[in-house]
Amino acid sequence: MTKRNYIFDIIRNVYQRYGYLQIETPSMENLSTLEGKYGEEGDKLLFRILDSGINYSELKPKASELKNSDLSEKGLRYDLTVPFARYVVQHQNEITFPFKRFQIQPVWRADRPQKGRYREFYQCDADVIGSTSLLNEVELIQIIRDVFSQLKIGIEIKLNNRKILSGIADVIGEKEKIIDITVAIDKLDKIGLEKVNEELKSKGLSDIAIKKLQPIINLAGSNTEKLVALKNVLASSETGLNGISECEEIFSMLDNDFDMVSLDLTLARGLNYYTGSIIEVKVKDERSQFPGSICGGGRYDDLTGIFGLPGVSGVGISFGADRIYDVLDEVNGFPDLSGASTKIMFVNFGKEESAHCLKLLKRLRTSGINAELFPDAAKMKKQMGYADDKKIPFVALIGSEEMKTGAITVKNMKSGEQHKMSMDDLVKVLKSETIF
Amino acid sequence: MTKRNYIFDIIRNVYQRYGYLQIETPSMENLSTLEGKYGEEGDKLLFRILDSGINYSELKPKASELKNSDLSEKGLRYDLTVPFARYVVQHQNEITFPFKRFQIQPVWRADRPQKGRYREFYQCDADVIGSTSLLNEVELIQIIRDVFSQLKIGIEIKLNNRKILSGIADVIGEKEKIIDITVAIDKLDKIGLEKVNEELKSKGLSDIAIKKLQPIINLAGSNTEKLVALKNVLASSETGLNGISECEEIFSMLDNDFDMVSLDLTLARGLNYYTGSIIEVKVKDERSQFPGSICGGGRYDDLTGIFGLPGVSGVGISFGADRIYDVLDEVNGFPDLSGASTKIMFVNFGKEESAHCLKLLKRLRTSGINAELFPDAAKMKKQMGYADDKKIPFVALIGSEEMKTGAITVKNMKSGEQHKMSMDDLVKVLKSETIF
Repeated sequence: MTKRNYIFDIIRNVYQRYGYLQIETPSMENLSTLEGKYGEEGDKLLFRILDSGINYSELKPKASELKNSDLSEKGLRYDLTVPFARYVVQHQNEITFPFKRFQIQPVWRADRPQKGRYREFYQCDADVIGSTSLLNEVELIQIIRDVFSQLKIGIEIKLNNRKILSGIADVIGEKEKIIDITVAIDKLDKIGLEKVNEELKSKGLSDIAIKKLQPIINLAGSNTEKLVALKNVLASSETGLNGISECEEIFSMLDNDFDMVSLDLTLARGLNYYTGSIIEVKVKDERSQFPGSICGGGRYDDLTGIFGLPGVSGVGISFGADRIYDVLDEVNGFPDLSGASTKIMFVNFGKEESAHCLKLLKRLRTSGINAELFPDAAKMKKQMGYADDKKIPFVALIGSEEMKTGAITVKNMKSGEQHKMSMDDLVKVLKSETIF
Repeated sequence: MTKRNYIFDIIRNVYQRYGYLQIETPSMENLSTLEGKYGEEGDKLLFRILDSGINYSELKPKASELKNSDLSEKGLRYDLTVPFARYVVQHQNEITFPFKRFQIQPVWRADRPQKGRYREFYQCDADVIGSTSLLNEVELIQIIRDVFSQLKIGIEIKLNNRKILSGIADVIGEKEKIIDITVAIDKLDKIGLEKVNEELKSKGLSDIAIKKLQPIINLAGSNTEKLVALKNVLASSETGLNGISECEEIFSMLDNDFDMVSLDLTLARGLNYYTGSIIEVKVKDERSQFPGSICGGGRYDDLTGIFGLPGVSGVGISFGADRIYDVLDEVNGFPDLSGASTKIMFVNFGKEESAHCLKLLKRLRTSGINAELFPDAAKMKKQMGYADDKKIPFVALIGSEEMKTGAITVKNMKSGEQHKMSMDDLVKVLKSETIF
């Protein structure tokens, strides 16, 4: 929890730094809100709540004819986006648009649990609803940069635009094959140009289409160079040119952050969903082998339409907190988080000594130091073992002599060193102002 | 959320100050873990999860014969204590005892929603498992004191002991009537001694029993005086005397905090559950009329026995975050929490100006100031309305002149005053180091 809170706190602070407001939505939504929003697979993975007031004897159908909807009206949150869309529509008259909100909450999926896949996990989303300005994309990219810079993880940000992909499909006359095309192009580095073209052919692309695709497959150079080349290829597609100019505008506003963002036409995540910019973040850090995406997002032009509020554009990102956790673990990137844990334990020698310790503890805690007294006058071995297991760095020993003199005997659990000191000195040691 | 986080942060910090470790358990537990733990009423209020892989056509029984257990194996967390007990038993070989943990998570109850009762609400629990020392009770009372002192809410802490109540039942020979007795005694202030005795009689207590109860009903004075009087009445009950000596020991260790803790024999919360100390906190603050309890807890000698780990004593407390929220609202006790919201909004005059603003924003955010640029070059009225609705205290106006000179025109949204200033001065204003 301490490590997870470290990640959440950084994300929360950065979101707030950019003017995003935190909200929470209930864990349960009406099934009508959730169903049909995540595809067939998603519907299967929804956790449904059994209606608690249900009276089975009044149910007309036989068990063999029962449907989920006979037993359940509510389901658990599957992601944060759909409940947010529901929230925006429901509160549209109270919300001032553009609405910048963030949300850090668990979501549930009835998946088979496996490494990196959990039935319950946290999402950390930020979205802007009600503004078509590309400044929002720029801001979200800046947020990504700030979060990973604070987490000290090297990253690369990939940018694409649904309109460019649509333009490519337009130009080569293969609208339905755009996913096949991006998947094939993505393999260029691994399998080479010839095999990519073979794959395209095997997917049913005509020779003419494949020929037209060559400048796109071979796209190289800086973002600017790529965009110039693309402009030639997509000259006949208005949609494609729009996508290019959106990317150009974003790159121009990013200014010095340009370096870590690169145009990547193979990026097609959530293609059915996003209508403009598509963003994905991968780890680019020599200490890490982590292959997957750790953050992603994009623009969707009509998220709330399905709930009765059409024509409102939104753009958002989502940090994968569990994956970020794994990366930080991999690169040994968590800082010293012992601020949340106990700094010193007082050994319990009995009632009288404990009463004395309680006073000392009060002073330490008032000074902002996490401290505890072992609750039972147990054997020394047990008490020291407890401090060891809990990784408490210092142990205080208060016997009859210390009670008389007011001194405190302090043991450094790491070095084994032991010193007598005053309360003031102890506070300095525990606040790491003095080394011991 | 900002207000709720304020409460959670204080509770979390105080728990950590006393060496408690934060854990989270999954939202779902096996039904076998949850059922039968909260009484018949509780079983009804459990939210059950519909088995997602269920194949209705293979279900043998007719719908009219279906049981909950045919459809569901999991339920949502109903409180934090039972999942914690399950957790302790499951991890007993990895846990070092005494185990001090806290947990701040939502719980769910299939109740009819009404004022002050929610289907989903947060609990904030701390428990110590595996130590019978009364120092734990003392520590929990100190935690209560620290939390409410930081929240600036006046309180009184009521202490009772299940063993004293058992002793009373022993002495008057009415073991089963102990709840009736405490309920009747609790009405003394309102209805007077005579009516209390009438009520006791109507509940079936013998005249002898009622006579023996008189010194207990009339118990008054300081905690010490009450305990002395009780010792006489309960002289023949070993259990009762044990309860008295436990209270004495707690009071003696509380020392200066003695004042806010009072012995209250009418306190019988969770009687079937607690086996030793019983703790309850009420608001005692002239600004508040809040009648209910805002925190409570006690000692349970065998919480984990039901999961196969008998004989482990635990003691814990739980803060009612929603009720504390209501009290803080009532007494206007939330501090200025605008640290989490936007301090300044830059008006958007167009592309060129926005590009300039982005640089200024970067500097502000690096200085730890929450700032935003309105994303669209919308009409002034709309932009100012947005700042108003979002209660942003300052608005910056950067036109062509400001871009030339590097100055920033800043409007104080409260006073309406407008000043030109340098970036350095703006930072000072926003950090409230200079008044404007």
